[in-house]
Amino acid sequence: MALTASVIDRVVAAALQEDAPWGDLTSETLIPAAATVEAQLVAREPGVLAGGAVFAAAFALTNDRIRVGLALQDGDTFDRGTVLATVAGPARGVLQAERIGLNFVQRMSGVATLTARYVAAVAGTRARIVDTRKTTPGLRAFERHAVVAGGGRNHRFSLSDAVMAKDNHLAVLTADGTSLTDALRAVRAALPHTAHLEVEVDRLDQIDAVLAGGVDTIMLDNFSLADLARGVAQVDGRAVIEASGGVDLHTVAAIAATGVDVISVGALTHSARALDLGLDVAALDVPGLDRPSRGGKGRE
Amino acid sequence: MALTASVIDRVVAAALQEDAPWGDLTSETLIPAAATVEAQLVAREPGVLAGGAVFAAAFALTNDRIRVGLALQDGDTFDRGTVLATVAGPARGVLQAERIGLNFVQRMSGVATLTARYVAAVAGTRARIVDTRKTTPGLRAFERHAVVAGGGRNHRFSLSDAVMAKDNHLAVLTADGTSLTDALRAVRAALPHTAHLEVEVDRLDQIDAVLAGGVDTIMLDNFSLADLARGVAQVDGRAVIEASGGVDLHTVAAIAATGVDVISVGALTHSARALDLGLDVAALDVPGLDRPSRGGKGRE
Amino acid sequence: MALTASVIDRVVAAALQEDAPWGDLTSETLIPAAATVEAQLVAREPGVLAGGAVFAAAFALTNDRIRVGLALQDGDTFDRGTVLATVAGPARGVLQAERIGLNFVQRMSGVATLTARYVAAVAGTRARIVDTRKTTPGLRAFERHAVVAGGGRNHRFSLSDAVMAKDNHLAVLTADGTSLTDALRAVRAALPHTAHLEVEVDRLDQIDAVLAGGVDTIMLDNFSLADLARGVAQVDGRAVIEASGGVDLHTVAAIAATGVDVISVGALTHSARALDLGLDVAALDVPGLDRPSRGGKGRE
Amino acid sequence: MALTASVIDRVVAAALQEDAPWGDLTSETLIPAAATVEAQLVAREPGVLAGGAVFAAAFALTNDRIRVGLALQDGDTFDRGTVLATVAGPARGVLQAERIGLNFVQRMSGVATLTARYVAAVAGTRARIVDTRKTTPGLRAFERHAVVAGGGRNHRFSLSDAVMAKDNHLAVLTADGTSLTDALRAVRAALPHTAHLEVEVDRLDQIDAVLAGGVDTIMLDNFSLADLARGVAQVDGRAVIEASGGVDLHTVAAIAATGVDVISVGALTHSARALDLGLDVAALDVPGLDRPSRGGKGRE
Amino acid sequence: MALTASVIDRVVAAALQEDAPWGDLTSETLIPAAATVEAQLVAREPGVLAGGAVFAAAFALTNDRIRVGLALQDGDTFDRGTVLATVAGPARGVLQAERIGLNFVQRMSGVATLTARYVAAVAGTRARIVDTRKTTPGLRAFERHAVVAGGGRNHRFSLSDAVMAKDNHLAVLTADGTSLTDALRAVRAALPHTAHLEVEVDRLDQIDAVLAGGVDTIMLDNFSLADLARGVAQVDGRAVIEASGGVDLHTVAAIAATGVDVISVGALTHSARALDLGLDVAALDVPGLDRPSRGGKGRE
Amino acid sequence: MALTASVIDRVVAAALQEDAPWGDLTSETLIPAAATVEAQLVAREPGVLAGGAVFAAAFALTNDRIRVGLALQDGDTFDRGTVLATVAGPARGVLQAERIGLNFVQRMSGVATLTARYVAAVAGTRARIVDTRKTTPGLRAFERHAVVAGGGRNHRFSLSDAVMAKDNHLAVLTADGTSLTDALRAVRAALPHTAHLEVEVDRLDQIDAVLAGGVDTIMLDNFSLADLARGVAQVDGRAVIEASGGVDLHTVAAIAATGVDVISVGALTHSARALDLGLDVAALDVPGLDRPSRGGKGRE
Repeated sequence: MALTASVIDRVVAAALQEDAPWGDLTSETLIPAAATVEAQLVAREPGVLAGGAVFAAAFALTNDRIRVGLALQDGDTFDRGTVLATVAGPARGVLQAERIGLNFVQRMSGVATLTARYVAAVAGTRARIVDTRKTTPGLRAFERHAVVAGGGRNHRFSLSDAVMAKDNHLAVLTADGTSLTDALRAVRAALPHTAHLEVEVDRLDQIDAVLAGGVDTIMLDNFSLADLARGVAQVDGRAVIEASGGVDLHTVAAIAATGVDVISVGALTHSARALDLGLDVAALDVPGLDRPSRGGKGRE
Repeated sequence: MALTASVIDRVVAAALQEDAPWGDLTSETLIPAAATVEAQLVAREPGVLAGGAVFAAAFALTNDRIRVGLALQDGDTFDRGTVLATVAGPARGVLQAERIGLNFVQRMSGVATLTARYVAAVAGTRARIVDTRKTTPGLRAFERHAVVAGGGRNHRFSLSDAVMAKDNHLAVLTADGTSLTDALRAVRAALPHTAHLEVEVDRLDQIDAVLAGGVDTIMLDNFSLADLARGVAQVDGRAVIEASGGVDLHTVAAIAATGVDVISVGALTHSARALDLGLDVAALDVPGLDRPSRGGKGRE
Repeated sequence: MALTASVIDRVVAAALQEDAPWGDLTSETLIPAAATVEAQLVAREPGVLAGGAVFAAAFALTNDRIRVGLALQDGDTFDRGTVLATVAGPARGVLQAERIGLNFVQRMSGVATLTARYVAAVAGTRARIVDTRKTTPGLRAFERHAVVAGGGRNHRFSLSDAVMAKDNHLAVLTADGTSLTDALRAVRAALPHTAHLEVEVDRLDQIDAVLAGGVDTIMLDNFSLADLARGVAQVDGRAVIEASGGVDLHTVAAIAATGVDVISVGALTHSARALDLGLDVAALDVPGLDRPSRGGKGRE
Repeated sequence: MALTASVIDRVVAAALQEDAPWGDLTSETLIPAAATVEAQLVAREPGVLAGGAVFAAAFALTNDRIRVGLALQDGDTFDRGTVLATVAGPARGVLQAERIGLNFVQRMSGVATLTARYVAAVAGTRARIVDTRKTTPGLRAFERHAVVAGGGRNHRFSLSDAVMAKDNHLAVLTADGTSLTDALRAVRAALPHTAHLEVEVDRLDQIDAVLAGGVDTIMLDNFSLADLARGVAQVDGRAVIEASGGVDLHTVAAIAATGVDVISVGALTHSARALDLGLDVAALDVPGLDRPSRGGKGRE
Repeated sequence: MALTASVIDRVVAAALQEDAPWGDLTSETLIPAAATVEAQLVAREPGVLAGGAVFAAAFALTNDRIRVGLALQDGDTFDRGTVLATVAGPARGVLQAERIGLNFVQRMSGVATLTARYVAAVAGTRARIVDTRKTTPGLRAFERHAVVAGGGRNHRFSLSDAVMAKDNHLAVLTADGTSLTDALRAVRAALPHTAHLEVEVDRLDQIDAVLAGGVDTIMLDNFSLADLARGVAQVDGRAVIEASGGVDLHTVAAIAATGVDVISVGALTHSARALDLGLDVAALDVPGLDRPSRGGKGRE
Repeated sequence: MALTASVIDRVVAAALQEDAPWGDLTSETLIPAAATVEAQLVAREPGVLAGGAVFAAAFALTNDRIRVGLALQDGDTFDRGTVLATVAGPARGVLQAERIGLNFVQRMSGVATLTARYVAAVAGTRARIVDTRKTTPGLRAFERHAVVAGGGRNHRFSLSDAVMAKDNHLAVLTADGTSLTDALRAVRAALPHTAHLEVEVDRLDQIDAVLAGGVDTIMLDNFSLADLARGVAQVDGRAVIEASGGVDLHTVAAIAATGVDVISVGALTHSARALDLGLDVAALDVPGLDRPSRGGKGRE
């Protein structure tokens, strides 16, 4: 959501500049300006695509005569060997932009693919898998988009669009002896009427006081499976229930089975590895030669 | 190298803006302006620190009255439970900046820690572990710094500061029938005299032609261990030798043992996971109360 | 909220640059560099202060040796003739920055003062006066802050932090014959769990369908007073009620008396006039003279 | 003057970003990507148009497939009910950009309409109505353009392009006992030969000394009507005469009748209210439906 | 004029970034972080200083622990061998910033020195030497400041602050048969009352028509000395007279002797050469050594 | 190299903004919007073209309806009177952009022309003429491009892409008594394997120690012709040899004749004068007139 063309252009242009502050010494020296190339983005392992448009932007911003055709859309799954996109145009620009295009699409597809594994693990339950604020600095919009491509859902975008009251906040609120319920009622009154109020609890005995304060979502943090189930029963539909802490691919199904509404997973964005995608050169054309030469494998 | 204060400030400020375009609704509503906090950055697993100054900047840029004391320096190793830094100051700012500070230092320490494992694996050989251009867009300076903190070394910084001729470049150079040796001599003459020339080869039989062309570094790409050893013997000191491809923690020691000078590892930056570090609140002070209240665990 | 020092500095610096792209020809030519001045920000009509820190920033960013002392805080009310702030320092900088400082504080105080009149008009009711997105381009954070200084409350900050479904949106949602209730349930499921859902209705008979869809706030748009009262009874606490349309200082009290929770007023920001504040020079000191000369009135 | 396409694009893009840092949650969730809309910008009160191109830019920068047709040009007058422009294209983009487009064109047309009233009031005299530096920070070029659209004229653009010596400046200049005439002659010699020199006087007895100093424009500040007439006679064509202070729609005709050349009016830009313009949806097309659905009224 | 600290900081920071996008490989590798240096900016030829503060900023922006002391002020003349400034602090930063600091101060002093030669050549006449818009892109404020340091004066700063009507403009104005006098009167009426109107003429017979139109300055372009003298007599004080074209150090005195008010010289900024200034290292201190080592000559 | 379209656009746009922060008062007032012009860029002296695309960008960025046709390419030589380019389109934009377009192309062609004289002087030797870091702040990419257009070659682009160890660096390295050879070996080991290492020597007796340390390029600084020849013999192909210091058009041929590989010339960029190029108006068309009027000479 909100990974608009202008956001893509701005971030990709900065990445290209970071990678070539004084141009690409190699391409400018070794490749004739008139040489052209055709290449393919190929999956070297199975996964879920995210970042097709970002990949394309890396080439377009380097040379607007490069044409990128996307064979799949973000969110599509693919097997090893699948051609995900084709790239054609001036060889200098293609070879210069290749690494930056790959850096984006490999990371984003890595996030989408990991997300899809979590989503598959909770299939058949009511739980949605959501991301967190544990995103790569500068790339939140890209990673949020990748989570959605993988079938996940977004949590709040930023500190500005929903309240998340954690243990330290609650400690401050009740430091003068005010009850938690009264404190949360005061918070609600002080907030814009459009603010979503989520409160984190560590123990079952906090739940009723928090619900009495009028929250929208209650987060059960680091609860055992048994306590999660008890918490779901205790809340009984009075608020959205989010489970957090101790979530991995081994535990997520059992957590979802307790009946929680939302499971937040920091690993989706802070620890996904890049998916193995590569750009294979299919044909190189150097004007003045009789035939296109056979290209190599196109990796760094 | 070159992770200067101004670079840190620019990137961290953008990350803070990304995380709070309209302020921190939670802190501004729930935390009195006068409340202060003391907290500690604690390691929840062992590792190597990188990004201490970046962590500190996240707080300083949010509120210049927050003081951050670094207990370790970048490059230091630590055990689980070690206090890496202390943070003290206005609670609003500390709680707002916490996640961004952690996002940087967890990622950077993750890179440093993974690098240190590769470096340890090749101890006693002549090989240096180096990074690649497979860095996170926008964060190359941060990740390059983390690689050095982990004991690794940097490859070229960008497309502007050294030539790397790969299979596709060589295909173009020789497309008109020119010999590889002659082509590389022409390249050398066309380059600035200060340009480093590195050429990638896929087969042993390319080595002599490449060396005759006058290269500075020869990259042996995806060679078997046996061929690497043969390549080292064949080059015989006439150029720096870089091994690339198929490098992981299981294979790196054997690759180093072949006698190569440089081993480039994309995974250092494209697939490191965030290290588990957390900010624990030691004391919260809300003016008007008799004593500091006991803080919670301070994690999101 | 979120009118941080860095936001103020960025916007004020741009305004100063807009006003003097090639410096201040007048001050630089007519005023000796060593001349100093003392001046006072004086109210020429009663009102509510907003923008004190912004006023101060205009001087500090022009010359960091200018000292500004604020006699009142944002949100304070004042009479005609009140000294709101003092300014002292190099005369060149004070005279250069004067107009920009005034442009900000006059506008912001104008918004705060108008807001305070609306808030006073609904005193004793449950209604809160809130702003809208009808803010001056580039100055939303400043105007939102001024509304709060005047005792008003903020609506959503932007399109990113709450959903507002209006007639056109509803028309699209039900265009295929889906019932409004079912359509809103689908919207709710599609949104992040932290998104606040507000729906605008034009007629009483839409209320039940909308509430059945599970909205957080219902906006009664351009309702008569009688219908507003009927709507309040019909909603009966199942959602927050916002009244909109036809609100001015003559009608707002009666609207509030119907029992609505929120009254949104575009005029707070789109049609407030600048408050009449001026900078009076109290003393001018030109080194080399025996005594400070008597200053003039300091207006443009 | 100088409201170029690049200035418009830069300022409008910033306003759009301010209004949707993380996208438009409402349109993205509720409106299918394929839905299209036709809408009209309609006057809800009579006035003078300013900002047509700015209105159009808000849509074009949101989605370049949206087409905006302007029915009137800046400076044209219109009655209530007039269609000023048409907007057609993807519904998501139209609904997202609507408020920002309106925020600009309503403010600018408000300034133009107010200016036109002042200009009409002085018709038949030699006086020109001019603006001041009391503009909205960041929007001076927009407001200057609107003043011209309303038939007014611009004063100096900034502190860099003409000298305006006021009472405080004169106090400094003569603080060492130099006569005002001599001081102004020195100023003239110190200025670039292209600088326009305007001096403000408070009393009739200052006029001759100022004229003897060689000024281009003399400002008669807060003069009574009788004194203005005396001043005009006294100056007798030796300089341009600007009247300032106490100017409103009730007094401006009499001021103009005294024979002054220029009347500066801060209210044109510091206190104009937004004109009531709205975007009415004429037709909504959601693909898959038989016919376009009837749109609503399209206001926030 | 208007070479403010913020302008200096912005432009110098960009130059430093241009010179070291990835840091200074040399200093960072060869110089210990703790090493310090003392150095002197020395004149290798006589001249006039301009850019002292800019030189200092290059060091301060690289490392705020470097101290720069200016021995002369902008506008001061100096002989070969004069120490213009001292620089002391961390050796890494000093050696990194040296070239950029020199690039600015050498260019600016080159402009000031050339300007001073022109000014000296016209001493005793009424003519002022002024610059043009033929400045280095991005550095106009720096070069305008250097012209003033050399005793010259500034022409209009930009296209926005005075009108200069040349032959092509006049051709357009009179294309429909309007007389030049009438056309200029219409221009005057159409301009803001604060705009300075300068008109260029190529022949003596244009002068009266132009003066009748009411111009402020008349430019006599490429006139012979005899015609300049005739022009001065013909204008007879009715406008400022600017001479332009064919001005060099050989001709400028004779041109000034004709009695013109202003002589504009493009060469001041478009063809000044860098003055020969160098940074000599006086002492280097590498901690751990007994005594400061003798430095070298410190030039690139 | 690397003078890409995006770099050109960014720098030229800033120069246009610098020259017209509030628009072009002259063109906007004197030239009807519908007037068009045809003009030619004409050489008023012989030279080598550089910056054709930059010249064109100045017009395109001012008004995208202006068409610029380049008759020559960068690097082409021309005689006095040659038409280098044609410009056609709206007269307002052409007249506004003229000076900025000329400022760029005159400076860049000045650099190219001066470079070509140096290159011609060393024809028949092995020496290449290279530039230095003594470039105009903000314009390095433009000047590097111009050097290449003139037949010269580039040195390192910045401090980030090669090491240059000078006398002060060497003094630090050997301050603790380490031999120069050992110190340079340590430097080599500490550098990225791709870094080019150049070392400056002042005396013949330093050469062997430096070469033993393993450098890529040795710079002989301020050597006499006899010593240069001795140095060439002593190095004997073990490193690239760069001569520096005392290079001008009178000495460069003799320096080249000593057999050095590279001669660096700061004057190429720090002291080139602008080439005399002008824009001549061929035809002006003011709609409503029977025929195009004859244009003037189009210079400032």
